[in-house]
Amino acid sequence: MGRKTTITDVARAAGVSKGLVSFALNDRPGVSPDTRDRILDVARELDYRPSLSARSLSTRTSYALGLVIARDPEILGADPFFPSFIAGVERVLSAEGRALVLSVVGDDAHEQTVYRTFASDARVDGMFLTDLRHDDPRIPLLQSLGMPAVTLGDPDARHAARASADDAGRTAHPYPSVVLDDTAGVVELAHHLAGLGHRRIAHVIGPRRMMHATRRDAAFAGALAEAGCPAPIVVETDFTAAEGAAATGRLLDLAEPPTAIVFGNDPMAIAGIGIAHERGLQVPRELSVAGFDDSELARYVFPSVTSVRSDPLVWGEQAARTLLQLIATGASDDVELPPARLVTRASTGPAPTP
Amino acid sequence: MGRKTTITDVARAAGVSKGLVSFALNDRPGVSPDTRDRILDVARELDYRPSLSARSLSTRTSYALGLVIARDPEILGADPFFPSFIAGVERVLSAEGRALVLSVVGDDAHEQTVYRTFASDARVDGMFLTDLRHDDPRIPLLQSLGMPAVTLGDPDARHAARASADDAGRTAHPYPSVVLDDTAGVVELAHHLAGLGHRRIAHVIGPRRMMHATRRDAAFAGALAEAGCPAPIVVETDFTAAEGAAATGRLLDLAEPPTAIVFGNDPMAIAGIGIAHERGLQVPRELSVAGFDDSELARYVFPSVTSVRSDPLVWGEQAARTLLQLIATGASDDVELPPARLVTRASTGPAPTP
Repeated sequence: MGRKTTITDVARAAGVSKGLVSFALNDRPGVSPDTRDRILDVARELDYRPSLSARSLSTRTSYALGLVIARDPEILGADPFFPSFIAGVERVLSAEGRALVLSVVGDDAHEQTVYRTFASDARVDGMFLTDLRHDDPRIPLLQSLGMPAVTLGDPDARHAARASADDAGRTAHPYPSVVLDDTAGVVELAHHLAGLGHRRIAHVIGPRRMMHATRRDAAFAGALAEAGCPAPIVVETDFTAAEGAAATGRLLDLAEPPTAIVFGNDPMAIAGIGIAHERGLQVPRELSVAGFDDSELARYVFPSVTSVRSDPLVWGEQAARTLLQLIATGASDDVELPPARLVTRASTGPAPTP
Repeated sequence: MGRKTTITDVARAAGVSKGLVSFALNDRPGVSPDTRDRILDVARELDYRPSLSARSLSTRTSYALGLVIARDPEILGADPFFPSFIAGVERVLSAEGRALVLSVVGDDAHEQTVYRTFASDARVDGMFLTDLRHDDPRIPLLQSLGMPAVTLGDPDARHAARASADDAGRTAHPYPSVVLDDTAGVVELAHHLAGLGHRRIAHVIGPRRMMHATRRDAAFAGALAEAGCPAPIVVETDFTAAEGAAATGRLLDLAEPPTAIVFGNDPMAIAGIGIAHERGLQVPRELSVAGFDDSELARYVFPSVTSVRSDPLVWGEQAARTLLQLIATGASDDVELPPARLVTRASTGPAPTP
């Protein structure tokens, strides 16, 4: 048949990603000389001829990186995590004269289309993958599109992708990840509360489909069990202050209400303190409250909020640097940020004596 | 000399923007048939021949809109105004399969470069102009680049631009604006506090180079004067909770501290309440506090925060719709949103009796 050689054939034969083949063929700076030579040799052997239109598309550099957030757009205003992460990304991109292409999609079906659109026509040079899911379908999707990416956190799909690399023609190198171990701070928080004598503890978490919610839930429950505490009461929310406030109300209405409530972010914790005060409860004398992310407001409200510092701004900076390096050189190492740490403030104290 | 006719010549002769000429020549949908015919007639008369490369660039639709924010990136995490505004924009763009290209630049010199980069190579189809400044230089810049845009608020440069349209070869139609009159709510707030007996009032505002800061400052001071109150003590900040907290501390240290403090946004107001509580002051019995924007958290803290509702999410939605209409049809009307209104909550009360 004499089927025309495609870029996928070259990538498979050279054992690299399609993106890297494209970089080498278009002589973009930063691909290591050895790798470029090897790719060009393979392309010659296979008689690969890129079409002119494909060439002009792939040489076009957009000078932009992409971020797709699959949450209700309103979360941007309600939870400072993404704005702070974006601030960190912008701090690096701005210095490099690059921009961020942002899309906030509510539902997953639509999301796939958005990733394809970003990848087509070289709209962005690389993408950030946040809110990783279990067996995240976006990783094989982006690999098939030849799109450089960095993951925030370590995807569990990573090992599967590695194992099936030969069969599926995927790159043998999955995406670099920028990891911040948030479980360390959650474990510290569990020990902090157990040490203060709390036994009835509630955990108001984010959406379970996100890996960080289930991971932190498991770490918190595990550390409490280790400390000889009963399992926490877990309430799932959408991360808004409204749902944090509602969850607090329901927890305080229980026949045996918790003496400590841990929230998945600071706005929910601040709203929870508001509900407690509204009911005439003193924080922390009658109820201890803790948050997550250590956002700016946590240290200025009264009582100031015990929180776990995850530093989304530094995460954004490091993710941007890693992605730019991957795009420039075709490779980048994983980055392990300092683990999230507990910041103890005034909102947690000894459990009330029964 | 036989100088080659440029797109600027056609735009000037037809009395329209360069962007609109480009739209008409490239037969992009939405230019009204009459306008297109007129532009094509003028182009023929002047023997205008677009170069092939210019044509291929200008027919390229990026399906993206641009937003450049000239503030410290950290403000994104600290103040929910921009995240909420972006959420509103994303809500509209997402439904239309479009993305937002975002750049956060700290200083103004760099900013001009970013606008030029966004305009070159059809990176974006239109731009949002926020944080309008007095005689804002970005308006003539974007007009000279032939870039469609929408302004948030009504620029004072508008009338000047109109007057000089013939000389400068600019379009006779300045950009449409999406206006939300925030002074109405500020005036209501001044009357609310005066009516509660407050006389020593402080106003903690945002950066003065931004029109909204000076406009609200003037409206608030004017309404207080009208109500027979002394001029407010004005403190300028960068809009962060940190500076809001610091300003509160300095105001409370005065020999005659204010009995009411009005803040330019809710995070500063919430931080101000935190400082007051930390010093053992009761809010509102000993100190009244008010914010601005009516962000989600304002209603969940204790005491809940009296604020002026500006609805940045609706502002973002409406700005996106206006800009998309301008891009599609070459024209869009100004939009006047319902004015910002005072939302009275528990953080303001009668002035303490001396």
